[in-house]
Amino acid sequence: AALARRHAETPMAGRTYGQHAATITFGHRAASWAAGMVDALDALMPAIDRAMVVSYAGPVGTLAAFEERGPEVRDAVAAELKLQTTDGSWHVLRARRAALGHGLAILIGAAAKMARDIADQVSTEVGELAEPHIPGRGGSSAMPHKRNPVSATVILAAANQSKAHAGVLLDAMVAAGERPAGAWMAEWAALPQLFGLASGVFVEARRLAEGLEVVPERMRANLELTRGMISADAAAGVIAHHLGREAAHRKVEAAAARVRATGAMLLEELLRDKEVAGAVDSESLALAFDWRPAIDASALWTDRLLTRVPATVSALGS
Amino acid sequence: AALARRHAETPMAGRTYGQHAATITFGHRAASWAAGMVDALDALMPAIDRAMVVSYAGPVGTLAAFEERGPEVRDAVAAELKLQTTDGSWHVLRARRAALGHGLAILIGAAAKMARDIADQVSTEVGELAEPHIPGRGGSSAMPHKRNPVSATVILAAANQSKAHAGVLLDAMVAAGERPAGAWMAEWAALPQLFGLASGVFVEARRLAEGLEVVPERMRANLELTRGMISADAAAGVIAHHLGREAAHRKVEAAAARVRATGAMLLEELLRDKEVAGAVDSESLALAFDWRPAIDASALWTDRLLTRVPATVSALGS
Amino acid sequence: AALARRHAETPMAGRTYGQHAATITFGHRAASWAAGMVDALDALMPAIDRAMVVSYAGPVGTLAAFEERGPEVRDAVAAELKLQTTDGSWHVLRARRAALGHGLAILIGAAAKMARDIADQVSTEVGELAEPHIPGRGGSSAMPHKRNPVSATVILAAANQSKAHAGVLLDAMVAAGERPAGAWMAEWAALPQLFGLASGVFVEARRLAEGLEVVPERMRANLELTRGMISADAAAGVIAHHLGREAAHRKVEAAAARVRATGAMLLEELLRDKEVAGAVDSESLALAFDWRPAIDASALWTDRLLTRVPATVSALGS
Amino acid sequence: AALARRHAETPMAGRTYGQHAATITFGHRAASWAAGMVDALDALMPAIDRAMVVSYAGPVGTLAAFEERGPEVRDAVAAELKLQTTDGSWHVLRARRAALGHGLAILIGAAAKMARDIADQVSTEVGELAEPHIPGRGGSSAMPHKRNPVSATVILAAANQSKAHAGVLLDAMVAAGERPAGAWMAEWAALPQLFGLASGVFVEARRLAEGLEVVPERMRANLELTRGMISADAAAGVIAHHLGREAAHRKVEAAAARVRATGAMLLEELLRDKEVAGAVDSESLALAFDWRPAIDASALWTDRLLTRVPATVSALGS
Repeated sequence: AALARRHAETPMAGRTYGQHAATITFGHRAASWAAGMVDALDALMPAIDRAMVVSYAGPVGTLAAFEERGPEVRDAVAAELKLQTTDGSWHVLRARRAALGHGLAILIGAAAKMARDIADQVSTEVGELAEPHIPGRGGSSAMPHKRNPVSATVILAAANQSKAHAGVLLDAMVAAGERPAGAWMAEWAALPQLFGLASGVFVEARRLAEGLEVVPERMRANLELTRGMISADAAAGVIAHHLGREAAHRKVEAAAARVRATGAMLLEELLRDKEVAGAVDSESLALAFDWRPAIDASALWTDRLLTRVPATVSALGS
Repeated sequence: AALARRHAETPMAGRTYGQHAATITFGHRAASWAAGMVDALDALMPAIDRAMVVSYAGPVGTLAAFEERGPEVRDAVAAELKLQTTDGSWHVLRARRAALGHGLAILIGAAAKMARDIADQVSTEVGELAEPHIPGRGGSSAMPHKRNPVSATVILAAANQSKAHAGVLLDAMVAAGERPAGAWMAEWAALPQLFGLASGVFVEARRLAEGLEVVPERMRANLELTRGMISADAAAGVIAHHLGREAAHRKVEAAAARVRATGAMLLEELLRDKEVAGAVDSESLALAFDWRPAIDASALWTDRLLTRVPATVSALGS
Repeated sequence: AALARRHAETPMAGRTYGQHAATITFGHRAASWAAGMVDALDALMPAIDRAMVVSYAGPVGTLAAFEERGPEVRDAVAAELKLQTTDGSWHVLRARRAALGHGLAILIGAAAKMARDIADQVSTEVGELAEPHIPGRGGSSAMPHKRNPVSATVILAAANQSKAHAGVLLDAMVAAGERPAGAWMAEWAALPQLFGLASGVFVEARRLAEGLEVVPERMRANLELTRGMISADAAAGVIAHHLGREAAHRKVEAAAARVRATGAMLLEELLRDKEVAGAVDSESLALAFDWRPAIDASALWTDRLLTRVPATVSALGS
Repeated sequence: AALARRHAETPMAGRTYGQHAATITFGHRAASWAAGMVDALDALMPAIDRAMVVSYAGPVGTLAAFEERGPEVRDAVAAELKLQTTDGSWHVLRARRAALGHGLAILIGAAAKMARDIADQVSTEVGELAEPHIPGRGGSSAMPHKRNPVSATVILAAANQSKAHAGVLLDAMVAAGERPAGAWMAEWAALPQLFGLASGVFVEARRLAEGLEVVPERMRANLELTRGMISADAAAGVIAHHLGREAAHRKVEAAAARVRATGAMLLEELLRDKEVAGAVDSESLALAFDWRPAIDASALWTDRLLTRVPATVSALGS
């Protein structure tokens, strides 16, 4: 969240299908990472609560040896262990544990969204981010320009594994009788590994949130890559006021083709068109290429996204 | 739940690893089915709520065309559609949809526990249950003794598929940029199928809950199959009062071996042992083989389990 | 395979949907277990061969430091390590490793079919099999009648986990560039675990194949449970020769209803019908209830199934 | 494969962890795609063969109604249907179908590697590839610079789903008795979908292989992005001949730091160092930055990789 606040006004290309779509801010993207984790925690926290029940039910769930005092005994064991009591038997009521495991997998999935973005943004071509420099991690004297996304890699690998373990917990629900043969034993491997993976993911996610290096100048430079075409829609809007919607689109497409051929900026190519230049004053057309409104909109939503990130999560996740 | 209440006092063998472990009631097992679904619904209901958010965020999540009025516009669209509003973008914040899908899969898993038990209990050897008789379903004129567990089969097959679809939703969380290539599209196949499967599972589960045929006499007959050994532990307890714990266990094991050889009842074989017969009066030993305390304990827990099943669920699930 | 040969003529109820369907032999079922593993090994063995390739390709797969001598160097390294050489790079060509892992998972799945059948057949009601008696495993002094299916449980739990790990290997195939971030690292956890699980499964499967206790008298007794209805189709066939197909089915269904009510045998109830008794001589009707043809057919197929089990597999698997 | 041959000498940055690692050619990467599919087809083709067996086994696998003529009848049915005959029953021997389904999933996974690379290489920053231009697909008049990777997206989404369906096939192997309740029914959904997905993937993969636009000048421009540091290891090797290994690395690291600060080329910065310039002649140092040896090595391996792609596959896959 601190990361998102610090870069609430740092313009960056928003990408859809890996291609520049419209201007956002890096703060907006980082706020999305935090919001994704908050969404995941909103589901996980009650799942943890519900899973913290005592497992003390005897071989078939009835604690029959205690006769009518069974509930009282179970309640006391639960109280002693600071767990919730329950009326059912741990061996066959697996929904709470399945929900817990899936909650962990979903949290890891939310972290993996951040990791995937970082892995893309640290690439040589994009270069907008770098993972925190930790001696001995991710570098190479033979390739002095490399700084591998080690934390992102760990998180992505953990996400692949966590999906698998979550599936095992659904299997375990199909529990025959009062204690099945095979189903719940597989949980013994899956659930602890999910906790282990979630814990490792948290360590790496915190490392990223605290130490991620942001390169605003590369974000700006990348925004220029389409030579103004990222603002083509806004430009067409301005021209449409004067020449009509259809003509405006034709003008923009023709200019875009020239941009691809000449490497000039879209604004220049538009103004080179006499009809456009005659109808629209160049200053108001230039405004269509201003990032300011997009930055303002991003910052507005970033603020709103961050109000959902409570203090505790902010400390945990980013 | 009605099924559980009706059979709250119907004794039945509780099984662990497919083997008789101790006496319970069929009501207790049925109450566990209901409780499993309640556990699943407790997780699913808030997940549904959280997933009902508007998707109206523009290409990169900022609704920049509306400038500072973006939030107001999105709130209005949400209100019009009777959905919650949101600050984030549907395309990258997938946790709520993943949680929804997993909630459905967990509910199907809880139904599959019931289906697995029914499939086992309708088997020729167990014969304690029969699926509701529906002409043209599950019978065969060539095999007039068969009544295949059609509803249970459908539920179990649905559970196998739902696990797979749930995994796809975790994949979709690793969403690159403001709209990824490939990840969320796979959700289009997975989430509707999960709803379809859950709906089919509900139809079949309700059919089972309403029409399941229970055969109490077979449950009792099966309880006799171990010729009293299901109560060996209680018998050892009574003998231990007089001969000590270690001797008691030796006596029970020796008598159990004779039971396997002769086919007599364990009580008979124990009383045939002169030391046992001399030390313990036969009436109090016979009490150890009484199912009553186990029935009472089962009924007690059944009551408690059923208090967790609210009226609405009772209508839905069993 | 030895198990299948020994019981090639031991009659047993063949079950569909958990219900008696027609008579087979235990040898036939055991031969199916062996054939399932042979099918799995037929796929696994070439997958192992194909996966045993050298991994020596340099950072981007071209061994450029050796210039035109690269292939020669790689071939030499492969020869030294007794591996196949390859033209591609281990980091991006994951199909062979995925196929290897899936082959292991499929082999474990084939063993799980055996384990599932054994878990069902050792149940108190069925009682046709018992796992080998190993002191301290699966028994309980408190429940002297229990012998839990420990080996089957281990195999079934392993199968649940192996499915999950196999899925991770498919994820790892989507490898970006010359070495991806995150995908193949997850394999490091999945592939070794698949080998570990397969190895544990083999230990338990061999234990079962060598020490499984078969109880032919229970198999016969269970065959009687439907009081002849398992042969209803054959009986209807005999009657149809005399009264026509439709009447025959009506007669059998009516008699089957009486069997359910009275507990008599189907043959008795059929002969009690005057039209049937008048048209069909009782001896040829009785032949319809003879298990011999079913035993012969089972034994025939068992022989054929076992010819597919080569000596080596016979040693390994059963 | 045609794609690989055409670009056998087109230099491109090889990437590890998303970062430039060493020079390869685009032909080498494309040959890897083809080789991955060949690896997958090598496993799939025999799996298809093995799965094409007749399913005609009667209710419990013994065709008992035909008595000793059962095998003969089954063989004849198989011959009529141009399928292989089999000794086992389709309902319980699921390994061949599981292997078939996993083979399809692995083939889709191999295609997904290509799709992932293309999705990365068409990104605005990388821009080395563009999907074939198909009117109405992947473009937008509002964003005239975009050409979304539609085919790659479809393939990646299919890969996510195919993993899920493959897992269902492993579940179906754990088949109780002679015909289980629930397990194999789930296959009815999974296996046809795998064929459907594989077929769709093939359509898109062929479209890509035939129409992919390659932009060699962007590949070259991207290769310059690290300003020579992609060749740092080779440069250190040359310097080491004169100043020793340790000094060489120190010199390169210092020069690399200056490159990052000044934006000059690594060769310039190295020659600016008097010790280096004194010891090494500038021409032989410049050779370390020549892409030629890397191109030659890539072309050599590309040739070898392509010899593995038989004509038929070449027609199918690329």
